[in-house]
Amino acid sequence: MRIEYDLDVLKPHQPDNWELAQVIMEIEGVTFVQIKTDEIDQKTTSVFLTIKGNGDLNLTNIKNALEDMNCALHSVDRVQIDNRS
Amino acid sequence: MRIEYDLDVLKPHQPDNWELAQVIMEIEGVTFVQIKTDEIDQKTTSVFLTIKGNGDLNLTNIKNALEDMNCALHSVDRVQIDNRS
Amino acid sequence: MRIEYDLDVLKPHQPDNWELAQVIMEIEGVTFVQIKTDEIDQKTTSVFLTIKGNGDLNLTNIKNALEDMNCALHSVDRVQIDNRS
Amino acid sequence: MRIEYDLDVLKPHQPDNWELAQVIMEIEGVTFVQIKTDEIDQKTTSVFLTIKGNGDLNLTNIKNALEDMNCALHSVDRVQIDNRS
Amino acid sequence: MRIEYDLDVLKPHQPDNWELAQVIMEIEGVTFVQIKTDEIDQKTTSVFLTIKGNGDLNLTNIKNALEDMNCALHSVDRVQIDNRS
Amino acid sequence: MRIEYDLDVLKPHQPDNWELAQVIMEIEGVTFVQIKTDEIDQKTTSVFLTIKGNGDLNLTNIKNALEDMNCALHSVDRVQIDNRS
Amino acid sequence: MRIEYDLDVLKPHQPDNWELAQVIMEIEGVTFVQIKTDEIDQKTTSVFLTIKGNGDLNLTNIKNALEDMNCALHSVDRVQIDNRS
Repeated sequence: MRIEYDLDVLKPHQPDNWELAQVIMEIEGVTFVQIKTDEIDQKTTSVFLTIKGNGDLNLTNIKNALEDMNCALHSVDRVQIDNRS
Repeated sequence: MRIEYDLDVLKPHQPDNWELAQVIMEIEGVTFVQIKTDEIDQKTTSVFLTIKGNGDLNLTNIKNALEDMNCALHSVDRVQIDNRS
Repeated sequence: MRIEYDLDVLKPHQPDNWELAQVIMEIEGVTFVQIKTDEIDQKTTSVFLTIKGNGDLNLTNIKNALEDMNCALHSVDRVQIDNRS
Repeated sequence: MRIEYDLDVLKPHQPDNWELAQVIMEIEGVTFVQIKTDEIDQKTTSVFLTIKGNGDLNLTNIKNALEDMNCALHSVDRVQIDNRS
Repeated sequence: MRIEYDLDVLKPHQPDNWELAQVIMEIEGVTFVQIKTDEIDQKTTSVFLTIKGNGDLNLTNIKNALEDMNCALHSVDRVQIDNRS
Repeated sequence: MRIEYDLDVLKPHQPDNWELAQVIMEIEGVTFVQIKTDEIDQKTTSVFLTIKGNGDLNLTNIKNALEDMNCALHSVDRVQIDNRS
Repeated sequence: MRIEYDLDVLKPHQPDNWELAQVIMEIEGVTFVQIKTDEIDQKTTSVFLTIKGNGDLNLTNIKNALEDMNCALHSVDRVQIDNRS
């Protein structure tokens, strides 16, 4: 099973994209993460996250990791579950 | 036989896209589901669903599952049946 | 020999796209059918049909099946015959 | 040797695209034909023909076949000869 | 070695695209020719020629062949030499 | 593990793109670098860097190398970590 | 190691694109050259050069060859070094 998410996230300037990517990469089931900067404001940065993983990937774990880094999950723009061999 | 649907669905904010995807994934014959958010209004969210499956995939089962989650199937935008080996 | 058609069809709301696809799939020589909704009016829906098949696919059979379901074949937008191995 | 033509053709409503495709398919060297409707006027239809074939494909034969069906070859928009193995 | 040219050519209505393609195909080293009509004026037609060939392909030979058919080589829009195996 | 960065960098005219690419190529873990010029001003040039590498690639090393060449890392536009086999 | 450059070059009408391509092809390490005409002025032509090669490809050699033909290297728009196997 392959799972993919596109997430719209509002984050403080720290942690930066690289630190954020590394923390997400440590979550169970994650095999791929891409973070693209959308807009940089004075105190926050909005970013687009694409996260791919296997059947162990769990959105609650992602939400918790984001909150631990003071990031707000603004919206889940795309969810995809693919069970084709 | 491979079957694909593009569905236009109006749903309450709960269940969220991830819960909706998981329920659809449990329907007989479903092998792939993608949910993309189209518009978020005050009480509802309109989403685009792409569902792929084998010959056991049955639109009535999808409709029933959507209704059980208080979602309205607004329109069936695309139906595809592919029997090529 | 592989044959493909793009058809522009005007249909009543019933049968819906799924029923229409299933009936076309039963026609001799048909191996693939895709139905996309173009416009929904008060009494009718205009749809785009893509039908693919082998050398046994016969447009007369498709026309007859459409008429049996009260659908009007508005135009044959594309015809393709491919005999390359 | 593979030969391809894109032709701009003005035809009466009869023969229709399917009959036209079948006649062209019978011409020596033709292995592929695609006919797309461009514009439908009161008495005529302008169509785009793509014809592919091997080294036996001969434009004179195509012109003759079109004239036999009261079609006018308006222009030869693309000619391609490919001799790469 | 693979060589490719995109040429902008002004030609009289005769020879037509097909005759022009056949003559170019006879030039030493040519393995592919495509001729697309750009604009048709009262006495001339401007066409885009794409010619591909091996290391024996020689632009002087192409120019001479074009002049022999009363065609003017307006510009050489692209030259490509590829020596990668 | 494959890592990719898109970086927005402000650099003096010297070092030029080629020198910059060569220095970055020497950083541990780097396997690919692309530098595209975005805007050339009187004293500075803004460039887009795409850097790809393996798990040994470290953004701090890249930042240090850029600073050593008097380049300012304006923003990290994209970070991608791919652990799929 | 594969190296690629996109160069913006201002050249006199002579040498023409074909002569220029042949001279660049003789430079050590060059395996591919593409020259596209951008703008033709009264005395000069601006062209886009894409040059690909192996690790022996050296920008200084390209600059020298261009100057020998009275061409001015206006800018290096893209530099790419790829060391992935």
